[in-house]
Amino acid sequence: MKFPKPTEMAHRLVGGALAEGGIAVDATAGNGHDTLFLAHRVGSAGRVYAFDVQDTALRETGRRLSWAGVAERVRLVAAGHEVMGEQIAAGDRGRVGAVMFNLGYLPGGDKTRTTEAATTLTALGAALGLLAPGGVATVVCYPGHPAGGVEAEAVVDFCRGLDQGEFRVARYGFENLVSAPPFLLAVEKRGRTSNIER
Amino acid sequence: MKFPKPTEMAHRLVGGALAEGGIAVDATAGNGHDTLFLAHRVGSAGRVYAFDVQDTALRETGRRLSWAGVAERVRLVAAGHEVMGEQIAAGDRGRVGAVMFNLGYLPGGDKTRTTEAATTLTALGAALGLLAPGGVATVVCYPGHPAGGVEAEAVVDFCRGLDQGEFRVARYGFENLVSAPPFLLAVEKRGRTSNIER
Repeated sequence: MKFPKPTEMAHRLVGGALAEGGIAVDATAGNGHDTLFLAHRVGSAGRVYAFDVQDTALRETGRRLSWAGVAERVRLVAAGHEVMGEQIAAGDRGRVGAVMFNLGYLPGGDKTRTTEAATTLTALGAALGLLAPGGVATVVCYPGHPAGGVEAEAVVDFCRGLDQGEFRVARYGFENLVSAPPFLLAVEKRGRTSNIER
Repeated sequence: MKFPKPTEMAHRLVGGALAEGGIAVDATAGNGHDTLFLAHRVGSAGRVYAFDVQDTALRETGRRLSWAGVAERVRLVAAGHEVMGEQIAAGDRGRVGAVMFNLGYLPGGDKTRTTEAATTLTALGAALGLLAPGGVATVVCYPGHPAGGVEAEAVVDFCRGLDQGEFRVARYGFENLVSAPPFLLAVEKRGRTSNIER
């Protein structure tokens, strides 16, 4: 398969927004794949906040980061992403280059513990407020299970309602599958020069 | 703006499918941007077929290719893309790495002369038959004008109906714009090993 998966496309779109020395947030640490990606991108001068409510997830993420030798760039936060706004240092707010969400349950973990529409929207709203101009938030949605379908629809509605002068929203996914496949929503905060660039 | 436009995303997805020495088709030569991109990708050992019904488009494409010194790799065909099936050399059928469609009217040209749903679907069907396993067809749709809306919907329906065992369909576009923005559909022909890769 040549077409990137939604999670891979998220990395590509985030890559363009996140510089060496930057600040990033993994809103759903899970098994730590996105956290590790972000830690590599920001380099030794940057920092990453990673949120998860499950101890298993934070332990696995911590282990992954230690193996890669990048643990000191990452602050693991044992809390839901809906408190993101308060947990990010005041000096980092409005300066974040990328926030990544990978919704649903922890792969290999308890499938009844999933992200939920209400807290996800709270967290996404907070994330957009934390972004620097030019910063990007990505959300991979999983409509293939019932609760995931409701959550995905809520995220789509939220993103569609964003002011096009302030944010640009891209969507990427597969179309001809019998099941409802995961898809990516990516939100870019427009900069001051956006009226000229358009 | 950091997120690629649908036309740029088409180049990225085609890039992964088209090797040095490959065969490619620009189904809508227009001003020649995609033709030139394809000619560069296939290199001096490859070849590109470029279709257009308008002399202005073929002249402009030819000029662009000559300036870049790649004209000898490209066969310009003064015909609509719906005859693509017959115009490609028999030995090249089933060996094409990429076919690109950029629907609508010629930029800077006569806006009443546009591609149309019926011939576009004929051409797209032919294109999928010409592809090698792993090959990619891309279609940038413009639903922002009435005829373009009808055509875009027809292309979406056609792509959604493709057998997921034979083809993979990806879609990319912007979501929160007040106008109906262009979007990309990309179709990958699956290879013999696709059952294992899945």
